[in-house]
Amino acid sequence: MEQGDVATVRGLEGSTETGRQRPGRAGPVAPRPASRARLRPLALDDVALDPAGHLGAWQRVNRDVTLPHCIAHVEERGNLDNLRRVTGRADGDFRGLPFADSDVYKTLEAAGWELARGARPALDDFVDQTTRLLADVQEDDGYLNSYFQGVHPDRKLREFHWGHEMYCAGHLLQAAVAVARSTGRAHLLAVATRLADLLVRRFGESGEEAIDGHPEIETALVELYRLTNESAYLQLATRFVELRGRGLLGPDRFGANYFQDHAPVREATEPTGHAVRQLYLAAGVTDVYLEGADDTLLAAMEELWENLLSTKTYVTGAHGSRHRDEAYGDPYELPPDRAYAETCAAVASFHWNWRMLLATGRGRYADEMERVLYNAVAAGTSLEGDRFFYSNPLQLRAGHDGTDEDHPSGRLEWYRCPCCPPNLARLVASLNGYVATSDDSGLQLHLLTAGEVTADLPGGPARLRVSTAYPWEETTAITVDSEHEWTLALRVPAWCREARLSVAGDPVAVSPDADGYVRVRRAWRPGTEVLLTLPMPPRVLAAHPRVDAVRGCVAWARGPIVYCLEQHDQPAGAPLEDIRVAAQEAPRAVAGSDVPGIPVVLVGQGYVSRADGRQLYAEGAAAAPDGEVVEVTAIPYFRWANRGPAPMRVWIPTS
Amino acid sequence: MEQGDVATVRGLEGSTETGRQRPGRAGPVAPRPASRARLRPLALDDVALDPAGHLGAWQRVNRDVTLPHCIAHVEERGNLDNLRRVTGRADGDFRGLPFADSDVYKTLEAAGWELARGARPALDDFVDQTTRLLADVQEDDGYLNSYFQGVHPDRKLREFHWGHEMYCAGHLLQAAVAVARSTGRAHLLAVATRLADLLVRRFGESGEEAIDGHPEIETALVELYRLTNESAYLQLATRFVELRGRGLLGPDRFGANYFQDHAPVREATEPTGHAVRQLYLAAGVTDVYLEGADDTLLAAMEELWENLLSTKTYVTGAHGSRHRDEAYGDPYELPPDRAYAETCAAVASFHWNWRMLLATGRGRYADEMERVLYNAVAAGTSLEGDRFFYSNPLQLRAGHDGTDEDHPSGRLEWYRCPCCPPNLARLVASLNGYVATSDDSGLQLHLLTAGEVTADLPGGPARLRVSTAYPWEETTAITVDSEHEWTLALRVPAWCREARLSVAGDPVAVSPDADGYVRVRRAWRPGTEVLLTLPMPPRVLAAHPRVDAVRGCVAWARGPIVYCLEQHDQPAGAPLEDIRVAAQEAPRAVAGSDVPGIPVVLVGQGYVSRADGRQLYAEGAAAAPDGEVVEVTAIPYFRWANRGPAPMRVWIPTS
Repeated sequence: MEQGDVATVRGLEGSTETGRQRPGRAGPVAPRPASRARLRPLALDDVALDPAGHLGAWQRVNRDVTLPHCIAHVEERGNLDNLRRVTGRADGDFRGLPFADSDVYKTLEAAGWELARGARPALDDFVDQTTRLLADVQEDDGYLNSYFQGVHPDRKLREFHWGHEMYCAGHLLQAAVAVARSTGRAHLLAVATRLADLLVRRFGESGEEAIDGHPEIETALVELYRLTNESAYLQLATRFVELRGRGLLGPDRFGANYFQDHAPVREATEPTGHAVRQLYLAAGVTDVYLEGADDTLLAAMEELWENLLSTKTYVTGAHGSRHRDEAYGDPYELPPDRAYAETCAAVASFHWNWRMLLATGRGRYADEMERVLYNAVAAGTSLEGDRFFYSNPLQLRAGHDGTDEDHPSGRLEWYRCPCCPPNLARLVASLNGYVATSDDSGLQLHLLTAGEVTADLPGGPARLRVSTAYPWEETTAITVDSEHEWTLALRVPAWCREARLSVAGDPVAVSPDADGYVRVRRAWRPGTEVLLTLPMPPRVLAAHPRVDAVRGCVAWARGPIVYCLEQHDQPAGAPLEDIRVAAQEAPRAVAGSDVPGIPVVLVGQGYVSRADGRQLYAEGAAAAPDGEVVEVTAIPYFRWANRGPAPMRVWIPTS
Repeated sequence: MEQGDVATVRGLEGSTETGRQRPGRAGPVAPRPASRARLRPLALDDVALDPAGHLGAWQRVNRDVTLPHCIAHVEERGNLDNLRRVTGRADGDFRGLPFADSDVYKTLEAAGWELARGARPALDDFVDQTTRLLADVQEDDGYLNSYFQGVHPDRKLREFHWGHEMYCAGHLLQAAVAVARSTGRAHLLAVATRLADLLVRRFGESGEEAIDGHPEIETALVELYRLTNESAYLQLATRFVELRGRGLLGPDRFGANYFQDHAPVREATEPTGHAVRQLYLAAGVTDVYLEGADDTLLAAMEELWENLLSTKTYVTGAHGSRHRDEAYGDPYELPPDRAYAETCAAVASFHWNWRMLLATGRGRYADEMERVLYNAVAAGTSLEGDRFFYSNPLQLRAGHDGTDEDHPSGRLEWYRCPCCPPNLARLVASLNGYVATSDDSGLQLHLLTAGEVTADLPGGPARLRVSTAYPWEETTAITVDSEHEWTLALRVPAWCREARLSVAGDPVAVSPDADGYVRVRRAWRPGTEVLLTLPMPPRVLAAHPRVDAVRGCVAWARGPIVYCLEQHDQPAGAPLEDIRVAAQEAPRAVAGSDVPGIPVVLVGQGYVSRADGRQLYAEGAAAAPDGEVVEVTAIPYFRWANRGPAPMRVWIPTS
């Protein structure tokens, strides 16, 4: 099938129901109407981010810089040539890692979501040409993977352990869903469904028992089911979830935990192994729960989440403590200097928490989306959008050796394993899909950012115009245009105390409910102004005493933003390594910084405690005494490393 | 050459001069008489360790358990079959890592040193049979490497980056030196010199410019030169040292630092990369300095040592902070939980420090030998001698996932990369070679342990009988049998204050000199008793404030021994993770523990500060208050994990 209309693909025509009379184009996660989702995502067209707002500006940079950068790099670095050489259209060796196709697919997905906001010829060309290339490369039975086709044709669909074939397939499916939903064109979807059908034939109910070493296919198959209504895809995703933890992947030098194949998903409630794999798997399990009928899956996911959040998550929302295997560590093993904190794991956490939010309606998942998005995900990209971190340390030491791309001193243009940049691109291109939801009672606003939200609620249409400088300013103004009764639910983040609300000029006493939302139910009139104020006094955070790596330290935060000290902002003669702050003293917020991208800094009193000449280990050495008093300045962590390499730390030793 | 007498090998006959009239058998490191060594090692026969003493007992366990264990495992795990299959005497695939031959060589070296203490048929058989096998496998031109011969014969001596061919060759040379010196038999030496001669032809002065990715050949060639007096070996070692740091190894995913190929050795004075490589290289450079004429090499090694000791060494003397690449971290990056602290790196540190001691006569190098031997090396093996650690964490957390052999919860029988057990075996078998030295003034005693030391000093023979329960007891009795005037130098470790000395019953005021030794010069009479007392009050150590990972913690030590808390010894209801101790309060030493292998424990007052139910990150959370008072008991770190897996920590949080 080439250049087919989306409606010609089975099931597609009915796939975008969101409770509206006029079906809108569905976003990245669109549970079926019959699903167990408590909340329904809005359609892609229902949320427009304002480029003047924080998320809208980011989406604009993503469109103008990051996405073209990714497209240029999958060309330059050989990912597309890997595909072309299968058909004889390119020479030379296969380049990059065996799963290089996945970077093409993530870039396609990003292009897909971006195209929902209007035609862009360069993106259209990239999608069309790449789709044609993929259709050419695809074999008659649906198989498609440039590494195995081009390098090891004898080993196809046999090396699930490290082969990444179903991982790549999952990203292709997600890209196809994005392009189909955004553009209505089914040409990429045709390629994807042929590959998915091959997987169904080979690994479906009566087929071979296998799972992929890198989860991803599970959540992708569920989304393809949501789009096409083809239940075989959901069944295959369910089967992959159920087969996990039975040792099908065999032994590995990193252990079965690495692949989350050490225990069935209902028992594997301690996060282990490769962080991205763990979180993609969790997203897949949650999707299977949402479209299925088994409550035990949700219970397992809730237990996993609680374990993760209480013992293995960085204060930035990042995941993964170990470089060696890109993995979670033991409980409370959270080193800031060697935090792996892979950008892809942050993206994966965002994806999983969204599914948990849809499943439960609980604001704690939206809180976590906010934390990871504004801190751990955002740190992965430079202010200009063309440089990236793969690992995201929470501390960079003086004297750091940044020659290894595993732990560079600043963001790099691209990586040997370039999974993160296109992962960022696809998330940011689809951010509008994660801002708000609806249910039978009304609308829920989860992420505060400037823009417009519209929805056809059961009683009629509603429109919100959101004006806010969140996360920098405390007050958000929401103009509600509607003429019927419904409930507006606004999330109050757990970090916020004493939120204030007024509706049409009248203060309203607010007390978030058990899910963490304040709910305003009324018969709305056009132009009703809702003012939500989330006070953001700077906060001084301490870690659980078992987090050995940051004992005796504090971190500064304001609103959802975690701050850090970077050497650039400290006074001359105050080496970052020697700065101390008082444990109980909060810094003050100062707006109007002249550093680009940093509207608000935190300023506090510090001390320079010099330890020059001290031995590495000494008897009876007391802590260095507080020295010279200095004013120290913290910037948002996600904006570090935009001014050249310099020592940085999120966790500041206390005096 | 087969079963040849050692004297038939060129140069061997004059190789063991130690200033004695009757040349003794040289030990592992034997600088030439014309070398720049300030101190001369004693001959192998000159030092006999008493099995009742600490080091002698260890050497006995090594002989009876560890060495047979290694011999059995190089058979069972296929290392010997890898060699046999080259000659058609074994079937099956190559097993293990490409450098599997090196484990055979290290085991041979250990057997060699052990044979110096008397014939042992099983060891003799192992040496002879393995030597015959190696001679069969060796090609006509001297080439010998079972991986390349058996798996990639087309790639010989071309893949220096990861091939490890010269690394393996170095271990063969060292084994051959051990067997030749200990037994006088040159059959293995004949194999080794043929391989060394190939390297000289191929990579000598006018040959190809190459270095091995894993240093080891350098120090081995120098020792072969010392044994054979063949200057081409020294020249080749010198050339390898001089070629390092010029990028010959090319780019690598871990970076040139990993191989210490980022800068010439005189400029590379910050320890970097793979710790074992760094330390073996340093030993080779120091050996080249010792036999050469270039003071700048020693200056560079001293600077490297100072950097290492002041910013990158664990309190146990261990090396290597990172699991990913078995490497040093940034300055002060010394996590206890993820300490890599490879046993081989500890062995390598011991080797290098011995060479620095010989070069300079400075006791700080012997202090470091003592620290690393008694703590970091010793932790690598179980009490019984048949289980081993590869990585040596300084903390094991509650809830540790020990399923990965990279970070097990206890010592394992063997490893996929089994470099450490035979490395331990060869060091312990040769420990008597590292106890004492001589120079023109007399004898120097560096390691205190029960045994006998004899030497033919310029003025006549001398004998010391050393009676001591060091490192557990403070006083060492040395009976000197001699009848002429010379100087007895006794090292006073830097950790010791107020050492006391008496000679023939008379107290002598002692004040260590700049090198760290007390020196007693007198005309000795047979049976003169010297009593050295090194007071060992338990010490409370703190780390430099820049060692973030152990901020707010102390470590307990007594004498040269670093202690740790292991859960086994703590009161019920006192989880190790919640124990605190007072920062300024020293524990007391208690002798007579009933735990095997632990003569002295440290007992102190602790507090149980429970943090149950606290959030991972919380605003304004103060440190947990001191709770219930408990008595906590520390054991020597090197004896941990002998009673089943349990949480352990060297660094204890303070209250």
